[in-house]
Amino acid sequence: MSLAPAVLSRLAEIVGDSRVRTDADSLKTWGCDWTKMYAPAPSAIVFPSSIEQVQAVVLLANEAGFAIVPSGGRTGLSAGAVAANGEVVISLDYMNKVLEFIPEDRAVRIQAGVVTEQLQNFAEEQGLYYPVDFASAGSSQLGGNIGTNAGGIKVIKYGMTRNWVLGLKVVTGKGDILELNKDMIKNATGYDLRHLFIGAEGTLGLVVEATMKLERAPRNLQVMVLGTPDFPSVMNVLKAFQARLDLTAFEFFSELSVQLVTEHQGVPRPFDTATPFYALLEFEALSEDMSAQALEIFEHCVAEGWVVDGVLGQSEAQAKNLWRLREDISETIARFTPYKNDISVLIQRVPAFIADIDAIVAAQYPDFRVVWFGHIGDGNLHLNILKPDDLAKEDFFARCKTVNVQVFETVQRYNGSISAEHGVGMTKKPYLTYTRSEVEVAYLKAIKQVFDPNNVMNPGKIFDL
Amino acid sequence: MSLAPAVLSRLAEIVGDSRVRTDADSLKTWGCDWTKMYAPAPSAIVFPSSIEQVQAVVLLANEAGFAIVPSGGRTGLSAGAVAANGEVVISLDYMNKVLEFIPEDRAVRIQAGVVTEQLQNFAEEQGLYYPVDFASAGSSQLGGNIGTNAGGIKVIKYGMTRNWVLGLKVVTGKGDILELNKDMIKNATGYDLRHLFIGAEGTLGLVVEATMKLERAPRNLQVMVLGTPDFPSVMNVLKAFQARLDLTAFEFFSELSVQLVTEHQGVPRPFDTATPFYALLEFEALSEDMSAQALEIFEHCVAEGWVVDGVLGQSEAQAKNLWRLREDISETIARFTPYKNDISVLIQRVPAFIADIDAIVAAQYPDFRVVWFGHIGDGNLHLNILKPDDLAKEDFFARCKTVNVQVFETVQRYNGSISAEHGVGMTKKPYLTYTRSEVEVAYLKAIKQVFDPNNVMNPGKIFDL
Repeated sequence: MSLAPAVLSRLAEIVGDSRVRTDADSLKTWGCDWTKMYAPAPSAIVFPSSIEQVQAVVLLANEAGFAIVPSGGRTGLSAGAVAANGEVVISLDYMNKVLEFIPEDRAVRIQAGVVTEQLQNFAEEQGLYYPVDFASAGSSQLGGNIGTNAGGIKVIKYGMTRNWVLGLKVVTGKGDILELNKDMIKNATGYDLRHLFIGAEGTLGLVVEATMKLERAPRNLQVMVLGTPDFPSVMNVLKAFQARLDLTAFEFFSELSVQLVTEHQGVPRPFDTATPFYALLEFEALSEDMSAQALEIFEHCVAEGWVVDGVLGQSEAQAKNLWRLREDISETIARFTPYKNDISVLIQRVPAFIADIDAIVAAQYPDFRVVWFGHIGDGNLHLNILKPDDLAKEDFFARCKTVNVQVFETVQRYNGSISAEHGVGMTKKPYLTYTRSEVEVAYLKAIKQVFDPNNVMNPGKIFDL
Repeated sequence: MSLAPAVLSRLAEIVGDSRVRTDADSLKTWGCDWTKMYAPAPSAIVFPSSIEQVQAVVLLANEAGFAIVPSGGRTGLSAGAVAANGEVVISLDYMNKVLEFIPEDRAVRIQAGVVTEQLQNFAEEQGLYYPVDFASAGSSQLGGNIGTNAGGIKVIKYGMTRNWVLGLKVVTGKGDILELNKDMIKNATGYDLRHLFIGAEGTLGLVVEATMKLERAPRNLQVMVLGTPDFPSVMNVLKAFQARLDLTAFEFFSELSVQLVTEHQGVPRPFDTATPFYALLEFEALSEDMSAQALEIFEHCVAEGWVVDGVLGQSEAQAKNLWRLREDISETIARFTPYKNDISVLIQRVPAFIADIDAIVAAQYPDFRVVWFGHIGDGNLHLNILKPDDLAKEDFFARCKTVNVQVFETVQRYNGSISAEHGVGMTKKPYLTYTRSEVEVAYLKAIKQVFDPNNVMNPGKIFDL
């Protein structure tokens, strides 16, 4: 599909000539996200610089009948920001200003194109903290984070992006500008539409501005890595620490991932002993007493047989290396063409769930290596299956699709989620009903109809109408 | 309006004969909430004991064309649960069981009729804590708390009810049973309908079950009351403490409220000095160091002139008495026929906002006494105008309605909320557009249409269709 020249002219009138691109390089760059499963094929990329320009493009889309893909940092892992069908991409790259800092409310009003790290740094300059953090913080934009309700590595203490959104300005699919919640902590005046837009993956409209809450900066963070003899022990360790300390992170990963990260990234092993699983935990030592408590709990875990060996970071450098054991996993396994899944179940059900999935993979795909890691304190597991060297990429993905169905059937049996934090986009769309009932999906579609009756906003994402 | 006998029979078939009441006493009791502005006039009260019974009543309402008012603890302050027009009240009084405790997830699945205090006590028995707390905790039910997104006195640290809802089972106005979010921390699979039902005041359907998150119990809570020479000093005190301590509460009240509470409740004054305003703050002293820090900050506030006198509770009994200075205000002023408003603005705007409202009242109603108190750490102010003894109730309310418009115009000018935590119900319905735009209200109505096309669920609440 290509745009009529008259429509292109009108786009140029709205955003300015230099802010419409149709060259092949731009179409390729702004037409895709980190998933590489769909060939990018947008008609044009526009770079508005104001809410009014965004609104004008949306109104034109309704009038002229083209589809829009909202585009942030394009770091998504579910093809939610891929334009594969002649859509017009609206990039927020030029709407990247911090607009206002409100110290009394610890709040900051920003344009949606602000990059996560930019917000984190801004918070730090004010002596505060923006706690949502994840691997792509250097390029992901807040609009995209809000569109997928991004999570990451600090959710156990600070929650998802949703918890930090005080207010939103959005342009709906119909082209209305709405100011949602007006930035207040307390506002009980009818349905909270803000929360509908959070996690809507741009299918109801575009988030153009957000007011984000900031937090007191954490003090004296301590990092421990503990080796456990089996997976249930990871859960016991979580329970033991959580009963006495407020954890800021609780991650886990398997021995295979430690092997790969130490081998490929030059990160030292946490300790000599190799154990099947590792837990990484972090807490604020607000007093000396708390560090002492952590060591007590550690000793208790060793005595119970839940922990075989462990280390407490003694310097900033060592703490950083311990974190790298977890944070470098994604980058490390990228070379093995991993088949990634991002799933969650109740924490209670995690051990049985992992055992079931391991059994499926072991029985049917004994040549596949599985790298488990994830945010175990939230029940969020990243399941990564590595391509055997001697298997062609196409054959590998074909076989993974079969695994997928079995994985999602297991997710459904455990009443879990087929997408914990990556969103549905296009890659998870065929599996949506493994988590949401058919009846519920009908309501989702009816809500879409309310905000975007002509289906101009990111059509074909989450569900097909 | 009364129900056809055939419809009453069918209701009795669904819930059982003994669970349908039409006697005058029952109609009066279950037909109203704590607001006494509308005469209760329901047709019948039904007390279902299962989700399927609730669903059957809703389906019958669609078929037979009667309206439903969902009813919890009936402690609402906006007439959201009042049945004044021949509705059938669905009381959740018999759906009051704690269904399942999930220790690994610190979660508890409950029926919607569970009373707030019952949940708080259950949490305590598990060594945990349910942090949403307010004056009506002894009778309000969780279904109602969720319907209004209840707030209360610990929001500054723990947030609103919304933050503690992991999952919901609802019966929509169409009669569908939906299981929303499936209790997970992370679930990025399309629009989060859970958050639409939170704060919907029963207009989209009935919340019948909820999974609530629990928290580590607070340790060694310390309470301080500080007297300030003016209102801006209250804000300076907030800022000073918040910079160094994680406050679990920050409330304020005026000298008039201290006079009334000490006079009528027999609570001792916090200290001899009378000051125009008082701040009550609470924090966890997780180490001795933190108590020392609090005293340092206190001294700093005195040196700056923000605090004239202050007290730190030295015993549990004293701490309780300090809390009573705040918590007994509502009960104390009830005898003065107060005209209550529950409003919020950004914290930054609170001092100017209060000054503006005070000026309006002082200029036009010099004979009115104003009691200010509220959750200042959230920007939530309770404005209470007391009836002069020599003014008839009708005349007083008539004059208050005029004040109301001016108050809400001021709220609008400050981009605030006409209802911070009490909901809209019927009492705030005429003023909804002071906080939500006309365009936004049109979306609210369209969403109502999706879940409740025949308008059987709590019609005439929040907005008129």
